[in-house]
Amino acid sequence: VETSDDPRWIRSREAILTAARALLVRDGPPGVTHRRVAEQAGVGRATVYRHWPQPEQLLLEAMSGVDLPFFRDLVTPVRGWLRRQLRIVADEFAMPEVMAVAAIMLQGPGGDPQMAERREAMIATVTDRLGIALTLAVTEGELENSGDPGDAVALLTGPILYRTSAQSGTVSDNLIEQLIESLGTWRPQPD
Amino acid sequence: VETSDDPRWIRSREAILTAARALLVRDGPPGVTHRRVAEQAGVGRATVYRHWPQPEQLLLEAMSGVDLPFFRDLVTPVRGWLRRQLRIVADEFAMPEVMAVAAIMLQGPGGDPQMAERREAMIATVTDRLGIALTLAVTEGELENSGDPGDAVALLTGPILYRTSAQSGTVSDNLIEQLIESLGTWRPQPD
Repeated sequence: VETSDDPRWIRSREAILTAARALLVRDGPPGVTHRRVAEQAGVGRATVYRHWPQPEQLLLEAMSGVDLPFFRDLVTPVRGWLRRQLRIVADEFAMPEVMAVAAIMLQGPGGDPQMAERREAMIATVTDRLGIALTLAVTEGELENSGDPGDAVALLTGPILYRTSAQSGTVSDNLIEQLIESLGTWRPQPD
Repeated sequence: VETSDDPRWIRSREAILTAARALLVRDGPPGVTHRRVAEQAGVGRATVYRHWPQPEQLLLEAMSGVDLPFFRDLVTPVRGWLRRQLRIVADEFAMPEVMAVAAIMLQGPGGDPQMAERREAMIATVTDRLGIALTLAVTEGELENSGDPGDAVALLTGPILYRTSAQSGTVSDNLIEQLIESLGTWRPQPD
């Protein structure tokens, strides 16, 4: 039987993760299914299930190894960039596959320590990116005060996750504006 | 063996729920443990586990049968009432027992349909209460526009759940002020 020390076990694990990340980058989270990953990696579907019994575990692990498609490519004005980024996040988290990852994100302390570590790494990345963006917004005179980046992540991401999971609904453009407004006092910008 | 049609099975289920609700009202969510509920109901702990293998399932079901201790006893000024209610919610959801219920709340579509039904009932209750509160705030001249009650629930509850679960942190009074501000434009009130 295969064990975690078996070189074949390690090789198949690496091949599956590489395939999952390729699909994630090409097709987004919905592309990361056990069937497609098995095909892409050239292994049997049962092998994928042995490594990752739950599809969301595989997706979360694949996501932790790629440049997250959230809050990237910062440009000014920051407010417009933030609006576009939040639209992407809201649309992604409306998809069941990504929502399953969100459920892991929101499990809190306890639960699988490896998952917790990945979750913390993802949140740290998003917090860093938002912190830089809000500092830029203050420097550019768009925003009065950048506040705490951790609070900003909670204020922006919390309601989106709540809407798509607990409320099973979609995030309107109007709600996105309210999220942006919740960060602080924005100054009107010249067009 | 007991089945769900067995009168003894139904009686023990009812006795356990009654006990769980009594403990919930008296001691809050941390009081609802399998051990204490078994003692209070006068049944063996194994019987409680047979009905509800997971403690959070029992807590959620108990919570669905009592008047939720959130956003009750509305008074003016609404802003001060809201501040106190959010402090209570934030402190409750910082407790692991309640966080486990929050994880069920955030599972989204799919998952146990009975749990989903209870979750929807709880969210509907909170949405109604907040809707009434924000309408009162507008009537009293505290708030300019009450907005959508569903959005208000997401804007207030989402960041609190995100902070206590995903970020494993506590909700500061400053963050609570930001949550309240996110609902719209509040007018300064005379002291």
